[in-house]
Amino acid sequence: MQLTTFTDYALRVLIFAGSKEDQALSTIPEIAAQYGISRNHLVKVVHHLSRVGYLATARGKGGGFRLAKPAAKIRVGDVIRGTETHFDVVPCMDPERKGQCPIEPACVLRRALREATRAFLEVTDRYTLEDLLRPRNRLRALLSVSS
Amino acid sequence: MQLTTFTDYALRVLIFAGSKEDQALSTIPEIAAQYGISRNHLVKVVHHLSRVGYLATARGKGGGFRLAKPAAKIRVGDVIRGTETHFDVVPCMDPERKGQCPIEPACVLRRALREATRAFLEVTDRYTLEDLLRPRNRLRALLSVSS
Repeated sequence: MQLTTFTDYALRVLIFAGSKEDQALSTIPEIAAQYGISRNHLVKVVHHLSRVGYLATARGKGGGFRLAKPAAKIRVGDVIRGTETHFDVVPCMDPERKGQCPIEPACVLRRALREATRAFLEVTDRYTLEDLLRPRNRLRALLSVSS
Repeated sequence: MQLTTFTDYALRVLIFAGSKEDQALSTIPEIAAQYGISRNHLVKVVHHLSRVGYLATARGKGGGFRLAKPAAKIRVGDVIRGTETHFDVVPCMDPERKGQCPIEPACVLRRALREATRAFLEVTDRYTLEDLLRPRNRLRALLSVSS
């Protein structure tokens, strides 16, 4: 059972951006270097996070991005809902594959798994980015974040 | 977020076997035909389920397998724990990848995701195979199960 790399990167980008002082900008090369991950992937992640309103972008030389809202207003569960392509933990939960399993009309398993997925997300809803940033000083030291 | 095909098949094999009358045997060709899934995959799944004590196998002509214990004693959560290769919902939770992410020592996210995964499994622990088999008559009709 796993989340997508996209989700993983999105959460790490938000942690990085959030660990900076209020108005300080982050850049993709900076994050790619710190986490040792691909710039190309990060471009897509940052684009998504901007589009859905978590990051505000400043273009041009000296540009970059910062959190577009207070970290306490960004729920981890909502970030995950926006980055995961689906929560069909088994294929038959995908509406496009409806009717492919003969027991579907009498299947209790799907209900159980839907309930379990909801429980997973409910826990992540209890965490905001602010919670993830609580060890801010340690994060800043570990990431060599410049303010 | 999704479970492996192996888990999906394992649960469906147990539902199939469990929907039969007490001592009636199921076979791989029968299950492959009913669900429209690969025999080769099923061989591995049935082997696993036998090895961990959920299925009892009768070899030879007219052979097959049946539940090795009452359906009420088989928890869905335990089946999933046995079939999923890992619950590292993000890569850094894999002990072999320890130390690859710089913020690891100050990471609250992993704790949140571990807690969320635990909540997912706790819900599946509340369901037994018996619960999945509650609509037994409908399942038997849908699967054209011979007793």
